[in-house]
Amino acid sequence: MQISYFNGKFLPKDDIKISPDDRGFLFADGVYEVVRWYDGFFFDMDSHLSRLKRSLRELRIHWAEVDTFPSFSNELIKQNNLENQPAMIYLQITRGVATRSHSFPSPEVPPTVYAYAWGFAPDSQSKESGIKVMLKEDIRWSRCDIKSVALLANTLSFQEASQIGLKECIFVRNGLITEGSHSNIFFVIDGMLCTHPENNHILSGVTRKNILRIADELGIKIREEAVQESRIRFIKEAFISNTSGEVIPVIDLGGNTIGDGVPGSVTKLIQEKFDREVKSRHEN
Amino acid sequence: MQISYFNGKFLPKDDIKISPDDRGFLFADGVYEVVRWYDGFFFDMDSHLSRLKRSLRELRIHWAEVDTFPSFSNELIKQNNLENQPAMIYLQITRGVATRSHSFPSPEVPPTVYAYAWGFAPDSQSKESGIKVMLKEDIRWSRCDIKSVALLANTLSFQEASQIGLKECIFVRNGLITEGSHSNIFFVIDGMLCTHPENNHILSGVTRKNILRIADELGIKIREEAVQESRIRFIKEAFISNTSGEVIPVIDLGGNTIGDGVPGSVTKLIQEKFDREVKSRHEN
Repeated sequence: MQISYFNGKFLPKDDIKISPDDRGFLFADGVYEVVRWYDGFFFDMDSHLSRLKRSLRELRIHWAEVDTFPSFSNELIKQNNLENQPAMIYLQITRGVATRSHSFPSPEVPPTVYAYAWGFAPDSQSKESGIKVMLKEDIRWSRCDIKSVALLANTLSFQEASQIGLKECIFVRNGLITEGSHSNIFFVIDGMLCTHPENNHILSGVTRKNILRIADELGIKIREEAVQESRIRFIKEAFISNTSGEVIPVIDLGGNTIGDGVPGSVTKLIQEKFDREVKSRHEN
Repeated sequence: MQISYFNGKFLPKDDIKISPDDRGFLFADGVYEVVRWYDGFFFDMDSHLSRLKRSLRELRIHWAEVDTFPSFSNELIKQNNLENQPAMIYLQITRGVATRSHSFPSPEVPPTVYAYAWGFAPDSQSKESGIKVMLKEDIRWSRCDIKSVALLANTLSFQEASQIGLKECIFVRNGLITEGSHSNIFFVIDGMLCTHPENNHILSGVTRKNILRIADELGIKIREEAVQESRIRFIKEAFISNTSGEVIPVIDLGGNTIGDGVPGSVTKLIQEKFDREVKSRHEN
């Protein structure tokens, strides 16, 4: 039986019910986080917690117990017997339950807090061989820096890619490549690692941040600058990053073969160091 | 006890619970409609039903019973004893309940259908005296033509207006005035009624459509063309429209007094014909 977390309690998942007046259901008025469990520890929980606090602050959702996120996540792993395998935690916080109105509930109501854990098999095939991705106009709002549950544009776009056998949809806004429907994207151009800078058009990925650190430690030159779609032919390597997939090579971008159509050497260097870091935490 | 509608059944509202796996809760993957009951009939239910079908089609949500919307709405009015007063129906359809994944559930799952009715007192004060509204950058996505529940940008923007005592937030995209957070907006400039054309940046309002018909019948010249924010000083009259508020004069737009700071004569002509139409349906 799956045990989930709901408003401070651990409950069988089937016992958790959301009110139809929940602002998450009516208005997408909420935020979320996804963290990865590596058979023994959460990867960079500190950064996930900081980002969660920022998302809540931007939406002005007040959740006094936000600092309990790491501890109840640990408890979810334990209660679902996931300690010794790869697993994920999903956490969602909405503005709570109130009679439908565009304005925030006044007086404030307690937020709805929901989290669950699940074990999963990492997609080693994609990580080794790379994936083909779609390129599509970015139809999302202009606050992509907030990790909100207003994900309709993301799901519609990903579905479009998925239906033709592509593994991600990468967005282009005003001619500039921003990010994927649920990943960031990196390019190697002129020997430099390029990625869209942190601003309102991308989510500040936790894996993205760690990749930039790793690349810097490896002595790879970094350029946080948006890449123009028109410069695709200059891209020598590409990869996407997210919490569940880590670093996944991109071998085809919107029908354009990247490099030799196989994962590139800079991508592999970063993957290897990422894996070494995870492995060394296991040994400590 | 309030009776609501949930997946084909009439139930006490408190008995209706949404699964935390509902794609409406996790992804804002759903659409909605709001219709107004005028103590005896729904205003232009046909147009609401058409728009609902379009929204569902755009999201590829399949709800075979969509044509039952008018009949269960009637039933909700009856079961809640709202026949003889102004009332509203809210209907929401989501893609249904499935394990969280950006791609659509495969195989498809039944949509979640939820509706409720409530009586209300129309805001005659705003209708008579007009309102002051905010002007703000349009941060929404680029499919505002779909009446989706991904309303986070709308609620954040409306809240901002609301907190400083303003009654609506009007959006500006690339210098052009689009619409409000939950209304369309009209202007009288050079003796012509101007409003943003139907495209992906505005919702095709049912009241908007009826106002254009009424204006045409009154011999008022119409220009469906976006008004530039820089041309505010040429605006002689302004009003917003939506299902609950009908036609509401705007007397101040982003700190700019409109006309003489009182509802304009064209606005009043349209309001009067709108009211006459509603009244005559009552008498028939």
